[in-house]
Amino acid sequence: EIKNGLSVLQEADIAELLENIEVKESLLIFRLLPKEVAAEVFSYFDVERQSEISSLVSDKELADIINELNFDDKIDLIEEVPANLVNRILQHSTAVERRLINQFLNYPEDSAGSLMTIEFVGLKKEMTVNQAMDKIRRIGLDTETIYTSYVTGTKRTLEGIVSLKDLVLSEKDTIISSIMEKGVISVNTHDDQEYIAEVFKKYNFLSLPVVDNENRLVGIITIDDIVDVMEEETTEDFQRMAAIEPTEIEYLDASVLVLAKKRLPWLVILMFSAYLTEMVMDQNNYLIAQFALAIYTPMLMSTGGNAGAQSATLIIRSITLGDIKFPDFFRVLWKEIRVGLIVGSTLGVLNCIRIYFTDGNILKAGMVGLTLICTTTFAAIIGGTLPILAKKLKLDPAIMASPMITTIVDVTTLLIFFRVASLILA
Amino acid sequence: EIKNGLSVLQEADIAELLENIEVKESLLIFRLLPKEVAAEVFSYFDVERQSEISSLVSDKELADIINELNFDDKIDLIEEVPANLVNRILQHSTAVERRLINQFLNYPEDSAGSLMTIEFVGLKKEMTVNQAMDKIRRIGLDTETIYTSYVTGTKRTLEGIVSLKDLVLSEKDTIISSIMEKGVISVNTHDDQEYIAEVFKKYNFLSLPVVDNENRLVGIITIDDIVDVMEEETTEDFQRMAAIEPTEIEYLDASVLVLAKKRLPWLVILMFSAYLTEMVMDQNNYLIAQFALAIYTPMLMSTGGNAGAQSATLIIRSITLGDIKFPDFFRVLWKEIRVGLIVGSTLGVLNCIRIYFTDGNILKAGMVGLTLICTTTFAAIIGGTLPILAKKLKLDPAIMASPMITTIVDVTTLLIFFRVASLILA
Ligand SMILES: [Mg+2]
Ligand SMILES: [Mg+2]
Ligand SMILES: [Mg+2]
Ligand SMILES: [Mg+2]
Ligand SMILES: [Mg+2]
Ligand SMILES: [Mg+2]
Ligand SMILES: [Mg+2]
Ligand SMILES: [Mg+2]
Ligand SMILES: [Mg+2]
Ligand SMILES: [Mg+2]
Ligand SMILES: [Mg+2]
Ligand SMILES: [Mg+2]
Ligand SMILES: [Mg+2]
Repeated sequence: EIKNGLSVLQEADIAELLENIEVKESLLIFRLLPKEVAAEVFSYFDVERQSEISSLVSDKELADIINELNFDDKIDLIEEVPANLVNRILQHSTAVERRLINQFLNYPEDSAGSLMTIEFVGLKKEMTVNQAMDKIRRIGLDTETIYTSYVTGTKRTLEGIVSLKDLVLSEKDTIISSIMEKGVISVNTHDDQEYIAEVFKKYNFLSLPVVDNENRLVGIITIDDIVDVMEEETTEDFQRMAAIEPTEIEYLDASVLVLAKKRLPWLVILMFSAYLTEMVMDQNNYLIAQFALAIYTPMLMSTGGNAGAQSATLIIRSITLGDIKFPDFFRVLWKEIRVGLIVGSTLGVLNCIRIYFTDGNILKAGMVGLTLICTTTFAAIIGGTLPILAKKLKLDPAIMASPMITTIVDVTTLLIFFRVASLILA
Repeated sequence: EIKNGLSVLQEADIAELLENIEVKESLLIFRLLPKEVAAEVFSYFDVERQSEISSLVSDKELADIINELNFDDKIDLIEEVPANLVNRILQHSTAVERRLINQFLNYPEDSAGSLMTIEFVGLKKEMTVNQAMDKIRRIGLDTETIYTSYVTGTKRTLEGIVSLKDLVLSEKDTIISSIMEKGVISVNTHDDQEYIAEVFKKYNFLSLPVVDNENRLVGIITIDDIVDVMEEETTEDFQRMAAIEPTEIEYLDASVLVLAKKRLPWLVILMFSAYLTEMVMDQNNYLIAQFALAIYTPMLMSTGGNAGAQSATLIIRSITLGDIKFPDFFRVLWKEIRVGLIVGSTLGVLNCIRIYFTDGNILKAGMVGLTLICTTTFAAIIGGTLPILAKKLKLDPAIMASPMITTIVDVTTLLIFFRVASLILA
């Protein structure tokens, strides 16, 4: 009954169902699945559930799952599970495959090598469409995609690609070299996944060939894995922009200690940087005490910080999307100066009015208003330009986000405020 | 010569090249391109360049481009260009197509209807694999994808899908209904694009059928457009989390006034909320003046704000990724309490030591340390739980990010600090 119920479900849904019940129960149901379905469901599990299931099943069952897994998923599994499980997995591989697995394990994390799979259709230039279709029918079931075939020359060098669409729409005796697309875009095994995701986005690819330094075809990357990369990279950006050391561990799976460890370093750095604010406050102690100026400082600092964070966020995101590059520096600067002045003046005037009506003190109202204009403009400039400079210095622009910007803006706001105050009150 | 040079380039690259030169020059080169290539290059242009080119070419040329465009790209173009251009475009469509265009223009922005295209292969259950392949060969060139065909029953209801892989790997006389996949996952024309992107991610789909309220197949959505949706939605999150009103206009294309208008509303709201900090400062004026407490407030507020922003960012991102849902509320709360205490205690102790050695005042060192522990823990709790509550209230959790959290934390930090101070100093 359960078996019938499961057969109408998508593998991703079965995986979701099984992930949300006890391991032992989920194993009972998992065992009811047909081999190929089981392997696909398995590939949808998160690492935790994959490890648990792997350690509970018999060697025979494990071998069956492993054999059905796509090569890239197999590598991912080996990378994540404990050592004793790795040994059990490798036992079920041939010597050739073990060598290949070891080669793939050596590719750097987040590189094309660690994303690619070896299950593709390889064709030769001299083949006819008919021969190509025969090959696809023969090996197609075991490949990741049959929608693009890869044409190689001598020494396995990549010479072209041909889509199944072109094969299906061509005469049977057409020679592959006459319909294949040349000048194929490919990536190197060591290229970074962020760059690869950009290539996919730019060209609307469904898959992309990966070559080694001698232009030999070694694997392909498919769009489904790139979708995951895009999410991973976005999460990394969010974390970095919030001054958190990036981690791929899901929040609910991360221990309290791990979470604390990822957050502490930047908090400490930023906290000690804030010592500068103490020094500025201390130097202006007399002014603060005499005119009760302290009450305005939180609002001034937070408004400046918010304005700076807005600029920084827009610019960092535009850099990520490739819309802003270093040559745009002065255009951004000029834009932020004007935006900062408009926004700052509005805020300044609004606050000036508010203070005048609550405090009745026109001098203080003027001081706060003028400071808001200056600090907001300064914040917009800093927020707009620091990320571009960071990128130029080969740093991740994401570190020049809200936490860093607000820390800089805090000190500057105080400097501006006390300068304005001493000028007006003098 | 240019023509030959261009023929080896990818359409996306040609578009990029032409976008970066003067319109008139780019038009000269654009006219050298073969019809189908021109249309594809055109679809890669951004809206600005599309409008410019459209308004410069002859009616005949425009008709050629429009006819070669995919239907979804055609709709996107019509949605964005000025009215006089729309009229020129519609002139080149048949009455039937005009009706269809009008129907598609009526789908809400960001809905499945506005993302889908009508160029798919539709099959009938009774067909044989051979008949299906014939149909694909006949109409395949004009469809967005031939890798999935959609099987409809009477009244165009969606009954199943069949992949080209299955067609190619099946015997020629197999009946479609026997190899098609039933229980197909589909979306409704009015479903939101964010939800649709999640469906694609979950199931690793390359395309997805769209049905109306009567389960009639009306279009399909393809992964390349979903990749763009994912970017758009991420950009929206970044903007909202930085207290910016979301906009899809690229930074460099946006006018200074538009940029200012998107940033001002939240800055004003947050600035006036900060009035609370003035009140708290004012009420503790005596304490501040007597013991020179003001100097510590910037560091305390910014550290608390950073800690709160860290929690909020992690939780908002986890909600977006579907990792955290409302029932996880208390797990998150309990985790944040502990992380907050660990992080806060570390920061508190470090600062306590620092102040003791710089100021030599053990009372103040203790006050600041204790405040840091309390404020960091409070910030972690607020940052961790408010996004979940916002989601529960059907608000975008992204608004409970750094700017909002820091504003709340600022006031609370001051309240805690002065309470601690008056207890210790009393
Ligand atoms: Mg990774
Ligand atoms: Mg991998
Ligand atoms: Mg794209
Ligand atoms: Mg894969
Ligand atoms: Mg990055
Ligand atoms: Mg990265
Ligand atoms: Mg939109
Ligand atoms: Mg559209
Ligand atoms: Mg996926
Ligand atoms: Mg499209
Ligand atoms: Mg959203
Ligand atoms: Mg949205
Ligand atoms: Mg542009």
